[in-house]
Amino acid sequence: MDEFGLIDQYLKPLSRGFAGSLSLTDDAAVFAPPSGRELVVTTDAISKGVHFIGNEDAALIARKLLRTNLSDLAAMGAAPLCYFLNLMLPHETRADWVARFALGLREDQDMFGIHLAGGDTISTQGTLSLSVTAMGSVTAGSALKRGKARAGDIIYVSGTLGDSALGLAFIQKKLHYTISEEHRRFFENRYYLPQPRLLLGQKLIGIARAAMDISDGLVQDLEHLCKASEVSAAVERHTIPLSAPAQALVQHEPNLWDYPLTGGDDYELLFTAPENKAKEIEALARDLQLPLTAIGKITSRGGVQVVDEQGRWLPFHHKGFQHF
Amino acid sequence: MDEFGLIDQYLKPLSRGFAGSLSLTDDAAVFAPPSGRELVVTTDAISKGVHFIGNEDAALIARKLLRTNLSDLAAMGAAPLCYFLNLMLPHETRADWVARFALGLREDQDMFGIHLAGGDTISTQGTLSLSVTAMGSVTAGSALKRGKARAGDIIYVSGTLGDSALGLAFIQKKLHYTISEEHRRFFENRYYLPQPRLLLGQKLIGIARAAMDISDGLVQDLEHLCKASEVSAAVERHTIPLSAPAQALVQHEPNLWDYPLTGGDDYELLFTAPENKAKEIEALARDLQLPLTAIGKITSRGGVQVVDEQGRWLPFHHKGFQHF
Repeated sequence: MDEFGLIDQYLKPLSRGFAGSLSLTDDAAVFAPPSGRELVVTTDAISKGVHFIGNEDAALIARKLLRTNLSDLAAMGAAPLCYFLNLMLPHETRADWVARFALGLREDQDMFGIHLAGGDTISTQGTLSLSVTAMGSVTAGSALKRGKARAGDIIYVSGTLGDSALGLAFIQKKLHYTISEEHRRFFENRYYLPQPRLLLGQKLIGIARAAMDISDGLVQDLEHLCKASEVSAAVERHTIPLSAPAQALVQHEPNLWDYPLTGGDDYELLFTAPENKAKEIEALARDLQLPLTAIGKITSRGGVQVVDEQGRWLPFHHKGFQHF
Repeated sequence: MDEFGLIDQYLKPLSRGFAGSLSLTDDAAVFAPPSGRELVVTTDAISKGVHFIGNEDAALIARKLLRTNLSDLAAMGAAPLCYFLNLMLPHETRADWVARFALGLREDQDMFGIHLAGGDTISTQGTLSLSVTAMGSVTAGSALKRGKARAGDIIYVSGTLGDSALGLAFIQKKLHYTISEEHRRFFENRYYLPQPRLLLGQKLIGIARAAMDISDGLVQDLEHLCKASEVSAAVERHTIPLSAPAQALVQHEPNLWDYPLTGGDDYELLFTAPENKAKEIEALARDLQLPLTAIGKITSRGGVQVVDEQGRWLPFHHKGFQHF
C-alpha cells in the first residue's frame, strides 16, 4: 500500500461534493464559511487500546471518530461543513482495513452532510492512532458556549445517560450481570455509535444559555461548564434519564449509578436554560422525538452537588474519564 | 500529569491573542476568516521513529511540526491565522517534555504570527505521535494551486535543495564524509528548522501560475505538480541551487545529487511562471534576499525528465519520500 494509491482509491472519493477540498490534490484546502456565518472548529484524537479496542470493524471506528467530532459541533449549535483526517497507521495495516474505514466515513458523511476536505496519512512504528479536525458553521455571534450559565438556570440533558459506558463495561467483561441479548446489543450499539445531537444543538440557539456535550462523564463535564460559567450546580440523581435497559440494571444494583453519572462517552448534550424556556424545550423534545430532561439547577455556590432521592449528598472519588 | 492541568499550564497561554480559541475552554473554536478572504487549511501528522528521531529537544520537534504546516500555507500564498494541535502522548511522557514542546511552539508562534486555537491531548499505548491542522487566509479566489502550470512556463525553486536530507543522513550516520563542524551544523539546522516561505508565497500571487512546497523530494513533488496540471517538465540538474556546503559534497561525490533531487524535507517552494515574469521574480528574490532559481521548463509531454550537464537523461529508481 502506498500513500498516494491509498488516497486515490479510498479517500479522494470522500472529498467529492466539497469543492474546497481541491480533490485532495493540493497542499491545502481552500474555502470560506457560508455568508454571514462563522466557522466552528474542533479536533479529537483516538488511539488503539485507549479509545477503542482495536478488534472492532474499522467502519465503526471511523464512524465513532467522526461522530465524536460532530458532537462537539452540535454542542456549539453548528451545522457540519467539512473535516480533515489524520491516519497514523502501523506498517501491518492492510488495505481492506482502510477500505472498511473509508466505508464507515462514507456512511456517516451521507447521514450528517459533511465531507472530507483534507488530511495526512503517515506510517507509525507504534499503535494505530487517528485524528479528525471537523468544521461547521453558525450564524455569526450565535455559537452556544459553556460559559454562559447563570444561577437559577435549569440544567437539562438530552437522551439517556450511561448506556455507552455500560456497553463498554459489558464488551470488556467488567460487568457480569445476566442481561438479555437485546439489552446487550442496545448498550454496545450506544458505545460504538453515539448520536451527535446536531439538530438539537442548532435548535437550542436562542433557547439555551450554556451548552456542551457529555464526553467525559456528567459530573466532570458539568464541573467544566460550571467553572467556565463561574457558577455551581445541584443535580437530583433520580431525575437523570436512563434507558429502560439501564433502569433495570440500576434498580438491581444501585452502585451502577456510577455509569450514568461518571461513565462518559455519552455524547448527549448538557445545557442550561432560564426557567421560562421550559415550554419551548418541551416542544423541541416533541419535535425532535428526543427526551430533554431537567436534572437540576444552576446555583451560585457549593460546586457540583448530586443528591439522591432522600436528599443525601453523594460523594465522587472518580468524576469522569481521566485522559492520563 | 493530568490532561486539564497540562492544558492550563502549557497550552492555554499559547491561545492568548486569538479570541476564537475561547481560551481552549469550550467544545470548539469559533472564528471567521478576515473579510474578503478565504480559509486555507492543511494538516500534517508526525510520529516518532518515522518523522523525527525522538531524542531531539522537544522544542525543535514542535517548531518543525508547525513549520511544515506553515510551509503548506506558504505554498498556497496564505497568511497564517491559527492552528489546532493533537498530542498523542505515551504514558511515560514527562511534564518537562511538554514544557519544552510548548516553548518551541511559543517561539515560532511569535516568529510567524500564528496562534493555538484548539486541540486534543490523549494518551497512547504506542509511540509519540503529533498532528497539527493549520489555517491561513488568502484573498478570495487568489490561492496558488498545483494544477495551473502550462507548457512553456519556467520552473523555479526557492532557496537551496538537499541540505535537510543531507543533515538527516549525517545525524543518522549514513554518510561518512569528513566535513567541517560548521557545515555539519548548517545541514543539521536545515533538517531541524525548515524555513516556511510565507512571504514568498504571498508575493507570488499574481506572478506564479502553479506552486507547491517541496516536502517529499523535488522529482516526486514536481511529478505531482505536473500531474495536477496535466503537463510535463524538463529539469537541468546543474541549475538546481545548492548551498556551498552541499556544492562541496556533490563536487566530491556526484552520487550525492540524489539528496537535492529526491531527498525531501526541503520545505522550499516549487513554482512555475510564464517567461515574461522573469524580471519580477528577480526583483522579488532581491527584496526577500532569497534565491529564486530557474531549474527548467514545463513541457507538454514526456513526464518529468532530469538531464545532466551533457544533456544525458537521468533515471530515478527512487523519486522521493515513500510514506509506506
